[in-house]
Amino acid sequence: MSLAQLNVDQIKPLLAPLAEQARKLIGQGKVADYIPALKQVASNQFGVAVCDINGNVISFGDATTPFSIQSISKLFTLVQAIKIYDETLWEKIGKEPSGQRFNSLVQLETDHGIPRNPFINAGALAVCDRLESRLSAPNYQLIELLQKLAKNPFIKTNLKVARSELEHGSRNAAMAYLMKAFDNFANPVEKVLESYCHHCAIEMSCVDLAKATLFLANSGVDLNGDKILDRSQTVRINALMATCGLYDASGEFAFQVGLPGKSGVGGGIVAIHPKHFSICVWSPELDEFGNSKAATEFLKILTDELKISIY
Amino acid sequence: MSLAQLNVDQIKPLLAPLAEQARKLIGQGKVADYIPALKQVASNQFGVAVCDINGNVISFGDATTPFSIQSISKLFTLVQAIKIYDETLWEKIGKEPSGQRFNSLVQLETDHGIPRNPFINAGALAVCDRLESRLSAPNYQLIELLQKLAKNPFIKTNLKVARSELEHGSRNAAMAYLMKAFDNFANPVEKVLESYCHHCAIEMSCVDLAKATLFLANSGVDLNGDKILDRSQTVRINALMATCGLYDASGEFAFQVGLPGKSGVGGGIVAIHPKHFSICVWSPELDEFGNSKAATEFLKILTDELKISIY
Amino acid sequence: MSLAQLNVDQIKPLLAPLAEQARKLIGQGKVADYIPALKQVASNQFGVAVCDINGNVISFGDATTPFSIQSISKLFTLVQAIKIYDETLWEKIGKEPSGQRFNSLVQLETDHGIPRNPFINAGALAVCDRLESRLSAPNYQLIELLQKLAKNPFIKTNLKVARSELEHGSRNAAMAYLMKAFDNFANPVEKVLESYCHHCAIEMSCVDLAKATLFLANSGVDLNGDKILDRSQTVRINALMATCGLYDASGEFAFQVGLPGKSGVGGGIVAIHPKHFSICVWSPELDEFGNSKAATEFLKILTDELKISIY
Amino acid sequence: MSLAQLNVDQIKPLLAPLAEQARKLIGQGKVADYIPALKQVASNQFGVAVCDINGNVISFGDATTPFSIQSISKLFTLVQAIKIYDETLWEKIGKEPSGQRFNSLVQLETDHGIPRNPFINAGALAVCDRLESRLSAPNYQLIELLQKLAKNPFIKTNLKVARSELEHGSRNAAMAYLMKAFDNFANPVEKVLESYCHHCAIEMSCVDLAKATLFLANSGVDLNGDKILDRSQTVRINALMATCGLYDASGEFAFQVGLPGKSGVGGGIVAIHPKHFSICVWSPELDEFGNSKAATEFLKILTDELKISIY
Repeated sequence: MSLAQLNVDQIKPLLAPLAEQARKLIGQGKVADYIPALKQVASNQFGVAVCDINGNVISFGDATTPFSIQSISKLFTLVQAIKIYDETLWEKIGKEPSGQRFNSLVQLETDHGIPRNPFINAGALAVCDRLESRLSAPNYQLIELLQKLAKNPFIKTNLKVARSELEHGSRNAAMAYLMKAFDNFANPVEKVLESYCHHCAIEMSCVDLAKATLFLANSGVDLNGDKILDRSQTVRINALMATCGLYDASGEFAFQVGLPGKSGVGGGIVAIHPKHFSICVWSPELDEFGNSKAATEFLKILTDELKISIY
Repeated sequence: MSLAQLNVDQIKPLLAPLAEQARKLIGQGKVADYIPALKQVASNQFGVAVCDINGNVISFGDATTPFSIQSISKLFTLVQAIKIYDETLWEKIGKEPSGQRFNSLVQLETDHGIPRNPFINAGALAVCDRLESRLSAPNYQLIELLQKLAKNPFIKTNLKVARSELEHGSRNAAMAYLMKAFDNFANPVEKVLESYCHHCAIEMSCVDLAKATLFLANSGVDLNGDKILDRSQTVRINALMATCGLYDASGEFAFQVGLPGKSGVGGGIVAIHPKHFSICVWSPELDEFGNSKAATEFLKILTDELKISIY
Repeated sequence: MSLAQLNVDQIKPLLAPLAEQARKLIGQGKVADYIPALKQVASNQFGVAVCDINGNVISFGDATTPFSIQSISKLFTLVQAIKIYDETLWEKIGKEPSGQRFNSLVQLETDHGIPRNPFINAGALAVCDRLESRLSAPNYQLIELLQKLAKNPFIKTNLKVARSELEHGSRNAAMAYLMKAFDNFANPVEKVLESYCHHCAIEMSCVDLAKATLFLANSGVDLNGDKILDRSQTVRINALMATCGLYDASGEFAFQVGLPGKSGVGGGIVAIHPKHFSICVWSPELDEFGNSKAATEFLKILTDELKISIY
Repeated sequence: MSLAQLNVDQIKPLLAPLAEQARKLIGQGKVADYIPALKQVASNQFGVAVCDINGNVISFGDATTPFSIQSISKLFTLVQAIKIYDETLWEKIGKEPSGQRFNSLVQLETDHGIPRNPFINAGALAVCDRLESRLSAPNYQLIELLQKLAKNPFIKTNLKVARSELEHGSRNAAMAYLMKAFDNFANPVEKVLESYCHHCAIEMSCVDLAKATLFLANSGVDLNGDKILDRSQTVRINALMATCGLYDASGEFAFQVGLPGKSGVGGGIVAIHPKHFSICVWSPELDEFGNSKAATEFLKILTDELKISIY
């Protein structure tokens, strides 16, 4: 298929059959269980939504059911931080794949408190710390951004999940304090952790997320026609997703799927086809790396079928 | 610029001015000095060659001077191994960025002898081990492949460099023996190391390498019109280059340049723009990660100028 | 010299000449500077006190000057914890040398939140956590114990140092939270850290510490004739000091000095000659491992001169 | 019991009852199985021999059955190396507990090829490398030393075991090459590995080993009245055994047993009570750290019963 002609009409007839195929993996993974509120999600759900650069949206399955975006929030806080700090954001945050679990402290100590990238927990906490220094109301302002990007005023945080995250946040606290010990964390740990946990507990649907990430496929311009980032910043965020977006399975995702993406333990994965479309697939059961099994599979067979790996 | 129209005529006028800009970094890096034969290379050389999918080649500077391809050879041995083993190659070789130095043993022990990817030394040694099991004359057959891909019958190994590599190969021997201890290395270590060192010591020019890698931009079809790999294998090799090709600076390279690439400590970097062109830039001085400073800079400003990051 | 006859009269004439020799190292080390309050200590001080099992005390130099006992406090909190928990203390605290810096988190993560031994920071924090669960007033009760052991009612905490420790306690907080993440820390981190910092900031002199540790040389019986620990518990604490007491220089200390010992970054080192005597040497300048240079040297030449390594 | 009076007559009546108690652990461990020749040893064997400084020997059980001394050989090669190099031996070999498995490469890389101590595999290989540089026939000269120390001209190497060790020696080869890469290994790896494997395959009985290590309890003087090491060298070797002799269970052994010791995966453990006696206990089944379960238990209950921990 020639990419020049790619639009949602060509993808639409594939959604149902590919979803059926991907759904076969349901039952082989495991819903995130580190907090009670996530464990209760029905595991057999599956949804997908695609938004092309003309603003057309197609979807299938549980595509309008809100789910916990979890680490996908790291993508949006990074966008906020780049808008504020641009290149200076990278002074004490890396851009390299970590080669380690997303919540590991080993590397953070070896690297003297500099997190490898903004998509592992330590890096996202550092990003939230930077935002805390410059935003008056980080949680409110993130929700506001997401509502605008997705054109949905009903996006909100699940406060029960946020509280539960906070209660189980000791490892994140350890990371934040370790960065503080290396003078790479300016604000009170408790305050930043609270923001971080609220961000993770935001609930959005596949349709919301496909719309909200469209600007990444569209050189930085969102569905409202507003410039969120400039072209150069946009391609660089996509590059980061391509190398670091799926934790320590980022290499495998690039190999099998071939699109920049970002996953969350709520079971959602967003992916970008630059200049063409954004997509969000959701199914709660995770593989050993914390990425949705069925969502990954769907993306793999979709890009194989359409021959649309960016590589 | 619309990618649809991209061809070498549009790139040609940029080569001289961008080369001039990139050459300003010469003097800030350091020529590889771990073996005497490499240390003697004149550090102020700079060359670039581009080959588009129509087979047109443009070049500038020291583009026809042969240099030691070093780790760029890992790309071609991987191609050979994928042709032979296809998916089974990955049984005991990973596809993830390592997050560590290219010659580190730490991760290899932690991961029970499974190298993270085929582009770090341990992974390339594992690839050579697999080739040793199936090829009658690995060195000869690699040279033969390169001569065909580059359409240059004069490509050969610098035997003095190969010998010198072997004499300084204790760390590579340590890796191979560690894999053997984990039952992930079938052939005699000495024999595989000899092949490996001969591969690294092959000499090619920018023009040779741009031509030889064109099939990676052309869905697997080389300059002779022969199918080297199928489309799916090709995009997957490009994906691996994108996440792992520049050692532990792969994330930065994706961020700054936005093309899949593979570097060598001889100072060469090849990069691929899928469906459009292959490029090789060479300048001997390296940064702290072992990648050519001026070549990286050239690629960065070229993709910025033309707005052709794949992300 | 036959150990059967060893008493303080034989050691006494050696104190002055050996102190003179050890003092020559003053100027080559570095006073602890991670908190302002410690940095201000005059670096040319040197004191030593010995207490034999008959209760005789000899001393030389600045032996009655109180100094910050710092990590030597870990020895006494361990004693308190063993009195309360006995063998059950070791359920989630190890007894092995760590082979790493005293404040490293790497191993703590690898070992799933089980600190290697009670003398590295993580282990001492775990001990303080256990004490917090069972003591009504940990700080007061430790001071009370020390006053009794040293027969000195004036021993107290330097509150300025304690506050300063707390302000620079991010790394310790990181360790405590990491243990909490592994369910190996029961009490609020802030509360335990406060106790821990107060313990480190206790000030005692060489004479105080020689007296206070005499029970470890005397099968568990202190200067008042009270049984602090039973014989079996006592030799086991001495064994722990022998293998883990001087951080990652414990092997060198055993090799050079040959006595179980415990050091602190205030510059004090206590050492035990089982059945014979306890000794405390103090001089503020530290080596790269955080142990007093002159105090280590004094102990080395004393045990060489008297041929009294326990090995 | 007063140590002043300790002699083998007091220990003798305890051997049978304590052996009975220790033998109860047989069945809970696992005979070393990494080479076929070791795996075939009957697992229910148990022997013990004690030699006091007057040269009296007592024994019980399978005390005259030769077994593979394995890592206990590291003690004797260290003695040889100290006789030749004295203090200069330690220039590129450490004296610290490693805190890691005896055959780990992680630390060796982090520490730039300097092994932590002479009792882990890397350290013992470095010691053998030093001996290779100075001895004309390392294997012959070690056997000669052992025959003299044990007064037994029939001690010899089991060549079948030696060959089998060599065939399974890839990990040791990896360590040796890694040290070579850091310029800390002078001789050909193959040659040193051959010596090392022959040393490990020497067979001695409990009686042989108790006699052969008596000099370590006797200030360096052996059963023949010959000075093997001076007093200072002797106590320092004992100190090293105390902190590093039982791999990463050295802390636990000091805690439970309280004597310097050295173990081997053949199931033997030698221990020293300075100024009093040497002891060797043997039973083939190992714990998870590679130390004999029943032999460790015997030593623990013996030192508890006699109250003879050196601490």
